[in-house]
Amino acid sequence: MTPLVAVVGSSKAGKTTLLEKLIPVLKARGWRVAVIKHDVHGFEIDHEGKDTWRLRRAGADVVCIASSRQVAFMQSVPSDPGLKRLVARMPMAEVDLILAEGYKGEEVPKVEVWRPELSPEPLCKDDPWLLALVASEETGLQVPRFSPQEPEALARFLEEKFLAEPEASRVRLAVDGQPVALGTFARTALVRTVLGFISSLKGCKDPREVDLTIREPSRGSPDPGRRSASD
Amino acid sequence: MTPLVAVVGSSKAGKTTLLEKLIPVLKARGWRVAVIKHDVHGFEIDHEGKDTWRLRRAGADVVCIASSRQVAFMQSVPSDPGLKRLVARMPMAEVDLILAEGYKGEEVPKVEVWRPELSPEPLCKDDPWLLALVASEETGLQVPRFSPQEPEALARFLEEKFLAEPEASRVRLAVDGQPVALGTFARTALVRTVLGFISSLKGCKDPREVDLTIREPSRGSPDPGRRSASD
Repeated sequence: MTPLVAVVGSSKAGKTTLLEKLIPVLKARGWRVAVIKHDVHGFEIDHEGKDTWRLRRAGADVVCIASSRQVAFMQSVPSDPGLKRLVARMPMAEVDLILAEGYKGEEVPKVEVWRPELSPEPLCKDDPWLLALVASEETGLQVPRFSPQEPEALARFLEEKFLAEPEASRVRLAVDGQPVALGTFARTALVRTVLGFISSLKGCKDPREVDLTIREPSRGSPDPGRRSASD
Repeated sequence: MTPLVAVVGSSKAGKTTLLEKLIPVLKARGWRVAVIKHDVHGFEIDHEGKDTWRLRRAGADVVCIASSRQVAFMQSVPSDPGLKRLVARMPMAEVDLILAEGYKGEEVPKVEVWRPELSPEPLCKDDPWLLALVASEETGLQVPRFSPQEPEALARFLEEKFLAEPEASRVRLAVDGQPVALGTFARTALVRTVLGFISSLKGCKDPREVDLTIREPSRGSPDPGRRSASD
């Protein structure tokens, strides 16, 4: 499971500015970083009149545009998808750490950017998920404090906490859209079962990366796959 | 596997215009549609100075922005990812049909928009993947022809070809980044093995949607998951 840390704080506390300083430090240390930004006001990412804008206006549920330099996916959603559904869409093999901006209500490890002139006390002062504060002056809380001027120290802290573990089989399982935590036994058994199965398929002798998606039909609909298991 | 059809043709032949007409017809018939647009010139989707632009400029490998209305993912890539890798990133449960714009070199079913003033013969005239032509006049080829003014007829054609099958277990498997086709027996056995395993996990009694990702460590690196299968 790719580690996830949310950078939270009052509006204008400096969350994006902190991330702008932190990301290059993490990158220079060799980590691949993703950011998920929560925009509570709504945003416009596309340009009126462009082809992608025309395709979305025509009603496409998902629009992807791809060149040899970048890829973008745009999708309308009926309600706020929440952090965990977004994490599930991340290209896991390509990212070592996911930093969220916002999402202070979610139960994930958090770093709060605190400016006393904006809120008299840190927003997460009673949140058991609070890992650290970024503040220019003493906070009175029992969690480590980093100066906004010291992204290197915060990067080292996150690295020790989330990125220093030896590499093991990385497994992510979601059932009906919800992530499922696996213990060591269940994880090992699932990995070996699936890899063993797949390695018996033609051309899949030594699988290293597996992405499997299953969608069972709704109850009562015909299921031709169940008619025969030997054809 | 979500069906995929590429709309191809010369530059300025009217690919985006056709999709703009076709998508609302498919939507009105109840289908959820995704589009993957190939941009050979490179594109700019973000706006200079916006937070997402700042985060990408800071070096984030992936930037996601999410509100209660829409979600966007932006990612730098080292080379053109090709259609199949993009299809693998689609939220499969949320899409019935994927329409690509461009990608005439890929081995996928194709509809060509042909204007004789732009190319004397259809680009895909010898392509075994060519399903149909969209053209105002006779083409001389043995594939069905639809007028650019008749998106309804083309929508019905695609529906009969790709969308009318009874709903079965939908399974998508990619190994080391490449999609793997599964026969009926292998598909059924894999689905039942994995669902059976998962249904024995706490809180997963009746799984309908499963998303499983496995990343095996590189050879020679420590793998603590292999030390014990019973803790």
